[in-house]
Amino acid sequence: MPDPAVSPQELAARLAGRLCHDLMGPASGVATAMELLADPSAAGSHADARALAATSARTLVGALTFARAAFGLGGDDFDAKALETLTEGLFTDLRPELRWRVAVPRFGATSGRALLNLVQIAAGTVAAGGVVSVSATAQDKAWVVLVEAKGPRAQLRPEVERGLEGRPLSGGLAGRWVQAFYVHALVTAAGGSLGYRAEEGVIRFTAAGSG
Amino acid sequence: MPDPAVSPQELAARLAGRLCHDLMGPASGVATAMELLADPSAAGSHADARALAATSARTLVGALTFARAAFGLGGDDFDAKALETLTEGLFTDLRPELRWRVAVPRFGATSGRALLNLVQIAAGTVAAGGVVSVSATAQDKAWVVLVEAKGPRAQLRPEVERGLEGRPLSGGLAGRWVQAFYVHALVTAAGGSLGYRAEEGVIRFTAAGSG
Repeated sequence: MPDPAVSPQELAARLAGRLCHDLMGPASGVATAMELLADPSAAGSHADARALAATSARTLVGALTFARAAFGLGGDDFDAKALETLTEGLFTDLRPELRWRVAVPRFGATSGRALLNLVQIAAGTVAAGGVVSVSATAQDKAWVVLVEAKGPRAQLRPEVERGLEGRPLSGGLAGRWVQAFYVHALVTAAGGSLGYRAEEGVIRFTAAGSG
Repeated sequence: MPDPAVSPQELAARLAGRLCHDLMGPASGVATAMELLADPSAAGSHADARALAATSARTLVGALTFARAAFGLGGDDFDAKALETLTEGLFTDLRPELRWRVAVPRFGATSGRALLNLVQIAAGTVAAGGVVSVSATAQDKAWVVLVEAKGPRAQLRPEVERGLEGRPLSGGLAGRWVQAFYVHALVTAAGGSLGYRAEEGVIRFTAAGSG
């Protein structure tokens, strides 16, 4: 029996929910820090508060910039350098290490967005530490993006697998599922395909398409 | 000929884009202010920078809290008091005045979310100044939400009309269209209906449903 479809409003609501969840941490960090700074009786904590506010503000702008590129709908191409900058920004707050091995100079809207989302998903599979390697190749209009996560505790959650396969959420964290489902929807709607393979300590993601 | 459907990934991308757009302003405000505060040579601007950072942080948390409730997918009921607080928070940064005339104590997930979105849409029609009045009624499981915007320059944009009618974007600002389309999708998916009426200086929005 086929899975029931995911409605437009469910996907939109879950993606919005994921975004709000990701942003609320740094936004609250800034707000708390500013309250401390406005309180003269907390003068002893003001240096810490300023540092917290500055770090949270940077994290926030970085997360918004990444999300706008990864989730947005612009039809514009991506410069590989811009993708690298966005990806490096993402990893500044994460434990795994990034290895950027992309020789392709430009990406289309679909391949560039697939890369950003797969990198973030891959980073999540080795959240405790590891290495995320990104490579890509392109010929005429055909393109392939390969993202590999290696780490002693690499783990692909069932809800992420379901999302990558384009199947509805059936448990687990909706915020994890939705990004995987979203990248599947993006790539397949453009006529491409998405794959993954999980082995002991290493998880590989591929997206491929043309145009 | 029927309009082409709006795909799940298009709706999700446009809603995410709208969210990122709304949040980027206050997030950048905080980041700019923190850079100023870290610069000893800008000491003369530090008081202004602190005020900007504090205001922007409050706006940001308010916008995130509102968006999480208005766009999210929780199935929980809304307490009318919580809806009023969210709505008042929205109006602190806006020119039009809010008149809250809601006597219903609790709202379902659909009616509560419809109220929040219609209020924000209504506020946008009288952005230059005016009054937004909100009322609601409920009996057994049936509910009606009525939001009225009055102002000398009240204007309902074509892309908002199209969204409220559940039709795809065909011009205008995608960020305006998407919220209208989203509330239409939410309400109609729950078996309810959405209506609007624009006259000289006054625009009325209604959502109705049961359950």
